[in-house]
Amino acid sequence: MSVFSHKDFDHHEDVHFHHDPATGLKAIVAVHNTSRGPALGGCRMFAYQSDEEALSDVLRLSRGMSYKSAMANLPLGGGKSVIIGDPSAMKTPALLQAMGKFVHSLGGQYIAAEDSGTSVPDIEQMGSMTPHVAGIQSKLDVDGNPVSGDPSPSTAYGVFVGIKAAVQHKLQRDLNGVKVAIQGLGNVGMYLAQYLADAGAKLTVCDINEEKLNMAKLRWNANIVSVEDIFAADVDVFAPCAMGGAINDQTLPQIKATVIAGAANNQLAEKHHDQAVLERGILYAPDYVINAGGIIDVSYEGPEYSAKKARTHIDGIGDTLAEIFERSDATGQPTELLANKIAEERLQLRTPEHSL
Amino acid sequence: MSVFSHKDFDHHEDVHFHHDPATGLKAIVAVHNTSRGPALGGCRMFAYQSDEEALSDVLRLSRGMSYKSAMANLPLGGGKSVIIGDPSAMKTPALLQAMGKFVHSLGGQYIAAEDSGTSVPDIEQMGSMTPHVAGIQSKLDVDGNPVSGDPSPSTAYGVFVGIKAAVQHKLQRDLNGVKVAIQGLGNVGMYLAQYLADAGAKLTVCDINEEKLNMAKLRWNANIVSVEDIFAADVDVFAPCAMGGAINDQTLPQIKATVIAGAANNQLAEKHHDQAVLERGILYAPDYVINAGGIIDVSYEGPEYSAKKARTHIDGIGDTLAEIFERSDATGQPTELLANKIAEERLQLRTPEHSL
Repeated sequence: MSVFSHKDFDHHEDVHFHHDPATGLKAIVAVHNTSRGPALGGCRMFAYQSDEEALSDVLRLSRGMSYKSAMANLPLGGGKSVIIGDPSAMKTPALLQAMGKFVHSLGGQYIAAEDSGTSVPDIEQMGSMTPHVAGIQSKLDVDGNPVSGDPSPSTAYGVFVGIKAAVQHKLQRDLNGVKVAIQGLGNVGMYLAQYLADAGAKLTVCDINEEKLNMAKLRWNANIVSVEDIFAADVDVFAPCAMGGAINDQTLPQIKATVIAGAANNQLAEKHHDQAVLERGILYAPDYVINAGGIIDVSYEGPEYSAKKARTHIDGIGDTLAEIFERSDATGQPTELLANKIAEERLQLRTPEHSL
Repeated sequence: MSVFSHKDFDHHEDVHFHHDPATGLKAIVAVHNTSRGPALGGCRMFAYQSDEEALSDVLRLSRGMSYKSAMANLPLGGGKSVIIGDPSAMKTPALLQAMGKFVHSLGGQYIAAEDSGTSVPDIEQMGSMTPHVAGIQSKLDVDGNPVSGDPSPSTAYGVFVGIKAAVQHKLQRDLNGVKVAIQGLGNVGMYLAQYLADAGAKLTVCDINEEKLNMAKLRWNANIVSVEDIFAADVDVFAPCAMGGAINDQTLPQIKATVIAGAANNQLAEKHHDQAVLERGILYAPDYVINAGGIIDVSYEGPEYSAKKARTHIDGIGDTLAEIFERSDATGQPTELLANKIAEERLQLRTPEHSL
């Protein structure tokens, strides 16, 4: 199997392989679509077992970014990069700089951001070699407080907005008194909990980290459950904010919530689960639509950064979801399927040729 | 099989895949080594049966260009590109322009030149989208006559210089009265025949084109033989100037010449034929060393182009071959093997990091 005939190639514009013997860097940049703008996407570092595995991952993730940016109405395309190697063993400043040079050699076609296996400081390291990085600008938030380039608060805010829209659509009410189960208190999950608690929601949470659970108990009087019991929690909303595949054949029958809306990527374990969720009467907020707050915020980076403008754009996630929910009611089609259709329509509307 | 683990990957720096749905372009640019300079190499268009076949071809050819440029003492690296498709059916101006844009997107890391399946006008078409093309400049030759960007005369001149050096080394004489068999009267073969005839060599030629044979007979009173009989011709020098693989298990026993020196690429059908040639007492001029005249000339293109400077550089092919021949005598090692060793040494001497 090669590149053009790869099962996940799916209309990619470019796939770039780079090897730097001096640092041991082996990396792939996949650029799925630049019809809306340069391809912004995370740079993942992982000890892939083979080139093939790395290629499959980067192609799949890159396409996902095209859909995400299109649904977030951003002037951005979809791309992603992977560095093949164990971050704990191989991630050196020299390697990250070599990655920065590789990104730079692509002339701005691809813009790198943090992802699993890389951190904001790592992207800053790449940024010493190229301006084509994102998510590293320190800036002021809407309240005028300095914040790092970490997109987690914005992602959490977008998910909060999305949950509000879903609850409004499904339960015709605001969040005051609504019961929400948050699966995972990572960066995004913690910020999301704060937003929800401020809006009067009752929280049930799980995490593998004892400290975070204590914090949630202390701050929001959250109901603590085990990672196994979170699915069956007696709540209105289930918010997956941990690993992908939370919605699968084992967990779906346990879920009592009538809304699934969270921050995790790839929440549906398999394609058919969009239909399965619908059949159980659950309203599902497609993950890549609801978790776009981070990339929206990052897209506003620059000398003119305005947290307020970014927030207004993120508020649009609620409108987009409302449109998807209404179309789902009208057509009987699953929300994920409808989101994909809308994204594909938007990717077809190619802007005029890029100038050289 | 993927890219990094491909058997021909062999330290490539970059491999870029590009797809342009609008024109049907599917192309690969391979950049083997840029330690000496940007990677100049031909853009081949061919109806490859599979992606794999195209990838193998471009990787192999790209590495060959690194060796060739290093042995020619050029400030150039090695690269190559392939367009997947039948040139007669798919080669449109739009597709060539899309290829030009792809080349441009790589920021000058790779410079495209003509190759099989593409012509100088095709490269000019690409050149409407990028300055990173070569071999298209009309210029004045050493006699002040206007010439096209066609590198064939320079390739032929370099082969002529190389034959002189080989004859001097093996037979201790100049070319006057030396018998040379030229296999193939293509662009390069015809120019070479003229140089050799001017130097007093006696020519034996073959070709599939009747007209060219008549021309050779008329101009140089060349001895005409069939394409089968050229190997066994009673000559001092055999000059392969047609397809690759001229030296193989079938042809080698027939060859009476004690010097093999010609313009064709990949003259040795298999790796072991360098040793086989040596054992038969034949002096072999490594093909990528002797046929570098074209790329040397192309490297001098630009507003300051000087045919004289290019010619002086091409004259250096003779010195390089003389060095290889002497090292072969001293070590008993085949000339091709020694050339590869010298090239690899030169590629190891990396220049300081490229600036961004």
